[in-house]
Amino acid sequence: MKMTQDYIGKWAMILGGSSGLGLATAQKLAQEGMNICIVHRSRRSILAAFDTTVEEMKSHNVDVISFNIDAMNPEKREKVISEVVNSVGVSAFKTLVHSVARGNLKPLHDPNGSVLSTNDFTLTLDAMAVSLYDWVSAFAKANLFSPDARVIAFTSEGSHKAWKQYGAVAAAKAALESITRSIALEYAPLGIKANCIQAGVTDTESLRLIPGSEVMKEKSIERNPYGRLTLPEDVANAVYLLCRDEAIWINGAILPVDGGDHIR
Amino acid sequence: MKMTQDYIGKWAMILGGSSGLGLATAQKLAQEGMNICIVHRSRRSILAAFDTTVEEMKSHNVDVISFNIDAMNPEKREKVISEVVNSVGVSAFKTLVHSVARGNLKPLHDPNGSVLSTNDFTLTLDAMAVSLYDWVSAFAKANLFSPDARVIAFTSEGSHKAWKQYGAVAAAKAALESITRSIALEYAPLGIKANCIQAGVTDTESLRLIPGSEVMKEKSIERNPYGRLTLPEDVANAVYLLCRDEAIWINGAILPVDGGDHIR
Amino acid sequence: MKMTQDYIGKWAMILGGSSGLGLATAQKLAQEGMNICIVHRSRRSILAAFDTTVEEMKSHNVDVISFNIDAMNPEKREKVISEVVNSVGVSAFKTLVHSVARGNLKPLHDPNGSVLSTNDFTLTLDAMAVSLYDWVSAFAKANLFSPDARVIAFTSEGSHKAWKQYGAVAAAKAALESITRSIALEYAPLGIKANCIQAGVTDTESLRLIPGSEVMKEKSIERNPYGRLTLPEDVANAVYLLCRDEAIWINGAILPVDGGDHIR
Amino acid sequence: MKMTQDYIGKWAMILGGSSGLGLATAQKLAQEGMNICIVHRSRRSILAAFDTTVEEMKSHNVDVISFNIDAMNPEKREKVISEVVNSVGVSAFKTLVHSVARGNLKPLHDPNGSVLSTNDFTLTLDAMAVSLYDWVSAFAKANLFSPDARVIAFTSEGSHKAWKQYGAVAAAKAALESITRSIALEYAPLGIKANCIQAGVTDTESLRLIPGSEVMKEKSIERNPYGRLTLPEDVANAVYLLCRDEAIWINGAILPVDGGDHIR
Repeated sequence: MKMTQDYIGKWAMILGGSSGLGLATAQKLAQEGMNICIVHRSRRSILAAFDTTVEEMKSHNVDVISFNIDAMNPEKREKVISEVVNSVGVSAFKTLVHSVARGNLKPLHDPNGSVLSTNDFTLTLDAMAVSLYDWVSAFAKANLFSPDARVIAFTSEGSHKAWKQYGAVAAAKAALESITRSIALEYAPLGIKANCIQAGVTDTESLRLIPGSEVMKEKSIERNPYGRLTLPEDVANAVYLLCRDEAIWINGAILPVDGGDHIR
Repeated sequence: MKMTQDYIGKWAMILGGSSGLGLATAQKLAQEGMNICIVHRSRRSILAAFDTTVEEMKSHNVDVISFNIDAMNPEKREKVISEVVNSVGVSAFKTLVHSVARGNLKPLHDPNGSVLSTNDFTLTLDAMAVSLYDWVSAFAKANLFSPDARVIAFTSEGSHKAWKQYGAVAAAKAALESITRSIALEYAPLGIKANCIQAGVTDTESLRLIPGSEVMKEKSIERNPYGRLTLPEDVANAVYLLCRDEAIWINGAILPVDGGDHIR
Repeated sequence: MKMTQDYIGKWAMILGGSSGLGLATAQKLAQEGMNICIVHRSRRSILAAFDTTVEEMKSHNVDVISFNIDAMNPEKREKVISEVVNSVGVSAFKTLVHSVARGNLKPLHDPNGSVLSTNDFTLTLDAMAVSLYDWVSAFAKANLFSPDARVIAFTSEGSHKAWKQYGAVAAAKAALESITRSIALEYAPLGIKANCIQAGVTDTESLRLIPGSEVMKEKSIERNPYGRLTLPEDVANAVYLLCRDEAIWINGAILPVDGGDHIR
Repeated sequence: MKMTQDYIGKWAMILGGSSGLGLATAQKLAQEGMNICIVHRSRRSILAAFDTTVEEMKSHNVDVISFNIDAMNPEKREKVISEVVNSVGVSAFKTLVHSVARGNLKPLHDPNGSVLSTNDFTLTLDAMAVSLYDWVSAFAKANLFSPDARVIAFTSEGSHKAWKQYGAVAAAKAALESITRSIALEYAPLGIKANCIQAGVTDTESLRLIPGSEVMKEKSIERNPYGRLTLPEDVANAVYLLCRDEAIWINGAILPVDGGDHIR
C-alpha cells in the first residue's frame, strides 16, 4: 500500500471539509497516510454521504475525527481545540487547511434590487479571511502544530479581479491572502509555512451559488490550455505537495492550480 | 491665478482630511479650483491648525466645508450626506477621496505580549476598507456624483507584503484594493472611475504610529532611486492627475506614487 | 488657446509616431504646446496623410520635425541625434516616448506550419525592448534630456499573459517593462522618470496584424466595464498626464489605461 | 532505498547543470530515481569535481550522461538531440530544466565606466531566455518529451525589480517568464506543463559574479522570515515537487521558493 513516509502519524485539520476542495483534500491526505480532523457544517441531507466518505478514508488505516459545528463560533472553536488536545495530543498537526466558503453574493450597485450591506461585508470577511487567523492562533496557543507545519488557504483569481456579485468574497479572498502572508512571516519562529492555493474554476457547490457560474465554467473551459475545469482532486494534489518535506522553503506564496487559466 | 478648467465649480469629498495625505489632497484640489468637503475626526489640540488651513484653502476662491465626525458612524454619515445634498446639491462631486487610517497595530503572534484579536481585525477592515463602499454607495444613492466622477483610495505596498505588527492594516489595504476594483466595475454605469494610489513611505502621523517606523523611513530613503521619502504633496499631485479629464480611461488601477520604491 | 504651462518650449521625441498610439500622443502633446520630433518608418502610401497631420500639429504654434528612418539602425540613430542636437539644442527634451511595434507574430508550436525562429525572437526583442535603452542612452550621452524628463513606453496585458502567436511580442513587452524599471532606477541621477503605459486593446494597424484580433476586440468590448475599446486618444491622454509636473513622483510604474479591462 | 514511483525509467534534461541550482536539481532527481542528462559548460578546473558528483548520482542506480558543450550553439544542440534520441530513445524525458546563467552584469548608466551595449542585451536575452524555447522546440520536434512532461525554468525576483548592474539579466528573466507562459499555453497539446521557480538569493557562483552580492546576501538573510539564504537543495526540492504526478495541474505559474523573502 502506497503511503508517504513524511505523513505517517501526522494529523491534518481541515476547516470546511464536508464537500468540495476541503473534502477532496481530506481524502488525498488520508490516502497518503495522514490522520484527519474535519470541522464542517453539514445539513442533515448530506450527512449520510459524508459518513460514507469518512469510512472510506479510514480504510487507509488512518484516524478520522470530525466536528459538525460552526467554525466561526469562538466557544465551539475552543471546544474543538480542547477535545483535539485531549484525544490527539500536542505537536501532532502537520497541516491546517482553510476551506471555508461562506460569503454573501450580491452586487455593490443595483438600482432595483438588493445590494451588499456593511454587515454582509463584515460577515464575509470574518468567515472567509479572519477565521484563518483565529484558528491558527488558537492552534499555536494550544501547541497543536508539529515542527515544520503547513497552513494552506484556498483563494481564487477573484482576489485581484472584479466579478459582478462577487465583491464581498473578492475582498475576503484579498484579505485572506494578506493574512496568509502575515502568518508566513510572524509564525516562522514556530516553523510554520503558510501558503495560498489559487484554484481555477472548480465545479463545487460553492461555485454553483455564484450567479452566472454556468458562464464562468464555459469561459474557464474555453480559456484553459487543457480545455477542462479544475477538479477538487487537482487542488488536493497541490495541498499534498505543499505538505511534503520538500516544500519546506515555499512560504508566503500564492500557487495557481488551474492548468494555466491565469495566463490567458 | 492658475486654475484647472476641468475643476471649476466641482466638489471633492475628502474622507480623513485633517492631516497627512488627505489634507494635502484637499489643499492641492482647492488650489486648482475645486470646492472641498472634508470629513475628519480631529482632537481639539489640532483644530486651530486645521481651521487655519481651511482659511488658506478658501483664499483660492473656493468653498470649503468640513464635518468633525466619526466617518464610521452610519447615522453621522447619513447626516453629512443630507446636509451636503441641501447645501451643495446633487451631481456636484467630481471626486471622493478615501484617506481613512484607523487600524490596530499589533502582532499576530507574540508569546509574551498583546496580539491582534478577531475584533481588531474586524474594526480595522471596517474602518480602512468597507467604509469606502459605505460612502460610495451612500453618495450614489443621493445622486451626489457628477458624471465622470473619480473615487480614489490610498493604499500601500503593505497590501501585498508582510510587515510585523501591520497584519490587520495589511489585510485592510488588500481588501480596500479589491473593493476599489469592484467599484470600478459595478459603478461604471454611473460613469465613476475608481483607482488606488499606492503611496510610498510618507512621514505622516499615521506612519509614526507604526512600531519601527523610523527603520521603515531609513530603508525607504535608502532604496528610493531619488533618496527621499514620499511627501504628502506627491500623493496629492497624483490625485490631481487622476481627477483630470485626461484620466477618463484609467479605471481599477493601482498607481504607485513612490518615486520608484516599489521596483527595488 | 489652451496650453499647458509646463510644456511651453519643451520637446517630445516620439519613436514610432506615424500612426496609432505614437501619432495620437504627438497630436495631444502638440495641442498642449510641446514641440514634437517624430521618428517613424512610413511607407509612401501613408506619407501624404502623415504630412497633413504634421501640418495640423504645427497649427498649435509648435515646432514639428520628423525623420523617416529605421529606428533600429545605429547609424541612423546617431544621425538623428546629431541633427537634433544641432537644431534643437541640449536639455530640450521633456519626454521620450517609445511606440515601436515591430514584432514577429507566429506560434511557438505548430506541427504543420511556420513557427518562431530564434532570430524572430531576437529581432522582436531588439526592436520592441532593447531599442528603448539604445535611444535613452544615446539621448543621455548627448545631453538631450531636460531636468525632470519623462521616458514612457507602451506595453500591453500580453506582457504577463500568453496569447497564441504573440509569444515573441509578449517576451519583448516583458523585457520592455523590465528595461523601463532599470531606466527608472539608473537614470534617476539625471532626473528622469520612466514608466510604462499598459494600453487596453486598441484598434490600430498593429493590432490588426495579430491573428484573431477581431476576436480580441470583441472580447475586450465584452469585458470592459464601459463596453468599448481603448482609443489612441485615451493613451495619449495618459502620456500627457505622466508628462505633467505633478507626475514627478511616479517612477517605474506600469499604468493600465484600459477603462478597467485588466480587472476582469 | 527510497525512490519515487513516478520517476522510475524517466529522464531529466538539465541545461546548465555543472553547478548551483542545476547540479543540485540533477542530484535530487537522481536520488529519487530519475535518469539524468546534463548539458554544461565546465572549465577544466572544475571537471574532476563534476565527474565525482556524476559518479555519486550513478550510485542511485540511475543513468547519467553529460555533454560539455555550449548550449547556445545550434549545431551542438542538434548533435546532443540526435545522440540522445539514439541512446535514450523518444518519449523518455519527463522534464527539461533550464538553469542557464550567462549574462552581462554592467550598469545601464555610468558616466565614467563601461555600460551595457545593445549586444550585451541581445546575448543575455538569447542565453538566458530564448534558449529555453530553442531547446523545448528541438525536444518537441524530436519527440523526446514523455506525456505529461515538465518544463521548469529558474527566475528571480529581479524579473520584476530593478537592481544596479542587473539590467540585462533582469530583462532576460522577465522574457524567460513570458516564454515559459507561452510554452505552457502552446505546448499543452503535447501534455507539457511549464513553470518558473523564483529562487531566493542563493549563494552560487552566478550570484558571486553580481557586484554587491555580499550586500544582497546580508539583506536577504535579514528580511527572510527564517533568517537564512536559499540553498540549491531548496530549489531542487521544488523541482522535484513540480515533476510529481500530483503537479499535473500547475501550469504557467511562477513559484517563489525563498522561504518568504518575496513577502517582505
